[in-house]
Amino acid sequence: MPFILETVVATKNADDTWHVAPYGLIREAELWVLAPFRPSPAIDNLRRHPFAVASGPTDMRVVAGHVTGRRDWPMVQADKVDGMRLADCFGHIELQVLEATDDETRPRFRCGVVHEAAHKPFAGFNRAQAAVLEAAILSTRLHMLPRDKIEAELKYLDIAIGKTAGEAEREAWTWIVEKIEAHFAGLS
Amino acid sequence: MPFILETVVATKNADDTWHVAPYGLIREAELWVLAPFRPSPAIDNLRRHPFAVASGPTDMRVVAGHVTGRRDWPMVQADKVDGMRLADCFGHIELQVLEATDDETRPRFRCGVVHEAAHKPFAGFNRAQAAVLEAAILSTRLHMLPRDKIEAELKYLDIAIGKTAGEAEREAWTWIVEKIEAHFAGLS
Repeated sequence: MPFILETVVATKNADDTWHVAPYGLIREAELWVLAPFRPSPAIDNLRRHPFAVASGPTDMRVVAGHVTGRRDWPMVQADKVDGMRLADCFGHIELQVLEATDDETRPRFRCGVVHEAAHKPFAGFNRAQAAVLEAAILSTRLHMLPRDKIEAELKYLDIAIGKTAGEAEREAWTWIVEKIEAHFAGLS
Repeated sequence: MPFILETVVATKNADDTWHVAPYGLIREAELWVLAPFRPSPAIDNLRRHPFAVASGPTDMRVVAGHVTGRRDWPMVQADKVDGMRLADCFGHIELQVLEATDDETRPRFRCGVVHEAAHKPFAGFNRAQAAVLEAAILSTRLHMLPRDKIEAELKYLDIAIGKTAGEAEREAWTWIVEKIEAHFAGLS
């Protein structure tokens, strides 16, 4: 499998608002492939307006928020393309669709990099941020996984939260845990 | 617990060479605390020359290499302090020791940020890089952990490697797996 960049992607909606959501960009040499699973607003958006902007969030509440219904995070205009990036990001990439391949489950958009910029030095990794990302992904697969597996993964990820999280990561973690608990309680 | 930044820190040795190793920097408001466990060359180094440079590696082979005896990675001079950063890093922070507190097991060096810079836009997270980091840490605790726990963690982390690793991450992963297998084979 190729290198996947978990990032926050903005595409333009038909009404000129923005669809902002986490996606995994697939690296293909110098290109990035965006391959949203159907249904995804990004598919129609990229056909209409072939530009996407990918941001690397400084705050994982953006990612945890997207899987728990908290989607209103500050965005600012991109530099070169008609697009938006996260206001609080380490860096962003502005992409243009070069080729679109249709597919029943996962259309692919091969994109070239028009521009990229750094906004805050990324001087190292935070294990709690990685744990929030894993838990966020896990929380989108609750209906496909047995409860004991979900609980075992959460318990493992919680170690990094306990040891390395700051306030933002702890809040992000809490949102995801609440979502998973609600699922088990039959509320979701 | 506070936010911990897992980064690669360079300190100056008595012979004017550099000690470069992964450390977790503890965030304390605007400051970063470096608290190496004894014995660590960084302790004497920071007493002698109170500057440290923290780099966020683009390539996790640097981190996997440090725990598997591959320690020669390209470094370049820092911008403002007498220090060195990783040549290939997303960004770096140049630190000056403001206060040193002695301790039997873990002396603490509270550091202020003299300068920081971004070198490559960090546009998102890679789950395989996070898995390499977790496995690297795990590989330093083999003597303290039961074999089944180590194997269960590796198996879990290997999922992200299989799904999201590029070549660099796969090689880094291989080095760590080889180290752990050698440990179980009684070779380490």
